[in-house]
Amino acid sequence: MTIQFTAFRWVPSFAQGWVRDLRIRWALEEAGLPYEVILVDGETQNYRDWQPFGQVPAYRDDEVEMFESGAIVLRLAAMSEKLAPRTEAGLARVSTWIFAALNSIEPQAQTLVQLDGFYAGQAWTEGRRPSAQANLDARLTSLSNALGDKDYLEGRFTAGDILMATVLRELEECGALKKFPNLDAYRARCLARRAFAKALEDQLQTFRENEPA
Amino acid sequence: MTIQFTAFRWVPSFAQGWVRDLRIRWALEEAGLPYEVILVDGETQNYRDWQPFGQVPAYRDDEVEMFESGAIVLRLAAMSEKLAPRTEAGLARVSTWIFAALNSIEPQAQTLVQLDGFYAGQAWTEGRRPSAQANLDARLTSLSNALGDKDYLEGRFTAGDILMATVLRELEECGALKKFPNLDAYRARCLARRAFAKALEDQLQTFRENEPA
Repeated sequence: MTIQFTAFRWVPSFAQGWVRDLRIRWALEEAGLPYEVILVDGETQNYRDWQPFGQVPAYRDDEVEMFESGAIVLRLAAMSEKLAPRTEAGLARVSTWIFAALNSIEPQAQTLVQLDGFYAGQAWTEGRRPSAQANLDARLTSLSNALGDKDYLEGRFTAGDILMATVLRELEECGALKKFPNLDAYRARCLARRAFAKALEDQLQTFRENEPA
Repeated sequence: MTIQFTAFRWVPSFAQGWVRDLRIRWALEEAGLPYEVILVDGETQNYRDWQPFGQVPAYRDDEVEMFESGAIVLRLAAMSEKLAPRTEAGLARVSTWIFAALNSIEPQAQTLVQLDGFYAGQAWTEGRRPSAQANLDARLTSLSNALGDKDYLEGRFTAGDILMATVLRELEECGALKKFPNLDAYRARCLARRAFAKALEDQLQTFRENEPA
């Protein structure tokens, strides 16, 4: 099985270490599957025919061609016991947590993070902050209760943790996890895995190698 | 195969017709699969053990127990040719579009819609609007180009269209689709399907039957 996915050749420093091919790299390193990275700039029509939004990652293997980091990680989860149990029930749970990370947590996380980042200093952000904080806290409270004292969402590490940990990682700077010690420890536990460190270093190395003159 | 999913017994009028069990009802009606609806109020600990966020839908069948509307519709897509081609490649494309609807379009759509709805009249909303509109327009431009003159995202109707159409439907009131005639026609084409009308009527009928005295 030849696995290929796309990553950006270079991005500005604020985005380095945060581009979403990181999730695919992490999953592939956990699974121990060989892969090739295709570097792109995202804006050619040729690439848009593969990834309509001009984003990374896009993915192909011998059987499928697809995009969206959640869909790709779910595809990989079906290939490796390292990423999900080999049962219908186990794969369904992993699918559930991948969607929960991307649709029930990430939008609320991004809303708050963008107030301090992309939109920092704009007059409207202070008015928005209380509701953004409350919405995020409500979701994190539910997630914290669901995790309880387990090491991982399903007891064992799965691809669902890859998505959830990369979403919780977005909250490191704003301190939103301080109120939820079990989530903060869970985030740290996931990100301490050797496969994550390798994935992150590989993304950063690409940007170092392709730094514009 | 016994299929069960949860729906709310009643919600206030502004939410009627918009609760996300609609997506599951639509998919099941398209597939022609029999199902049972379990009415819940969402706040019991017993229900939270099944759906940690207290939302609907949660789902179970003979093999799996899960939640998140995207994950559930993807599960159903694997069961019926009416919802996705029977090939790995076809199912991967459906998975891709389900994630694209929920992670690349819906957060931007919700940001704009909430300015006119939930947060209407708050002082900060006018400052937020230009960037929210620009972010949404950028994604809709990409989606419009990807759809082109096709009837459905993959040429034939799939479960990916169920998710994308329910997301685009959120934009009906704010007029954001007027700039994208092919997306607006696509939304209307999807929502004109008999299975959608049945799903919507069934959700509304439940609320009529359980209207508080």
